[in-house]
Amino acid sequence: MFKDNEQQPNGFTLPLAQALDHLRWNEAGLVPAIARQHDTGEVLMMAWMNREALEDTLRTGRVCYYSRSRGGLWRKGESSGQTQTLIELRIDCDGDTVLVNVDQTGPACHTGRRDCFYWRADGEQLVLDKAPLIDPADLYPDKH
Amino acid sequence: MFKDNEQQPNGFTLPLAQALDHLRWNEAGLVPAIARQHDTGEVLMMAWMNREALEDTLRTGRVCYYSRSRGGLWRKGESSGQTQTLIELRIDCDGDTVLVNVDQTGPACHTGRRDCFYWRADGEQLVLDKAPLIDPADLYPDKH
Repeated sequence: MFKDNEQQPNGFTLPLAQALDHLRWNEAGLVPAIARQHDTGEVLMMAWMNREALEDTLRTGRVCYYSRSRGGLWRKGESSGQTQTLIELRIDCDGDTVLVNVDQTGPACHTGRRDCFYWRADGEQLVLDKAPLIDPADLYPDKH
Repeated sequence: MFKDNEQQPNGFTLPLAQALDHLRWNEAGLVPAIARQHDTGEVLMMAWMNREALEDTLRTGRVCYYSRSRGGLWRKGESSGQTQTLIELRIDCDGDTVLVNVDQTGPACHTGRRDCFYWRADGEQLVLDKAPLIDPADLYPDKH
């Protein structure tokens, strides 16, 4: 369906429910979802969505992922309070990746950093170059 | 290794080769790689890298992916001429996703569009809202 319609003009529409039937969910029923801060263009994190998480995101306007470690829906911010408000949800040319433009409250990363990409390759090293905004002990008080 | 070092201070380093040993490559030996235009913050595309593609990217300064359809290295732009010059390569907190900040020549998408995320969810529809910069027939003349 995505391939068949890639040469359509701007403004062309597909029914959402039918398009979701044609997403290229992996063998676990998931697609990668990239979260980007809508105004600054920071890439905050990458996680996974199943269909239920994607539909929940669109219905509620709060980003919801599928947690592979917990095996269930993960409403971003439900433990940490650091929610992602959905600005827009996009799907790529071959229907196998989601991009959510969001408004992130505070840190997106479980380490308390604004985003998850704090290791930068530099020659023969990886350098940690971003500091936490919030102590993770304060993000997840139940864990401590 | 990533988990063990998430509370290290800014400037802490890991040996790159050892860190790559600890990336969470999937069962096909791949990690997702997000390409972002370094200055505008556009998310251009998502593709996959194996270790060889990642090392090739760092060595050459041109972004190289692994093509799952072709089953081999995919030096971005080798057929289309639309290369991605590497600005910086980052790895996320749990070592399972790569972010490349790049300088993209022209369109990143095989459809001739600047980026691959041209389907936007809007109510019960997906709306195509980005037009090609270049006719794909001119991007891949060998295919036509």
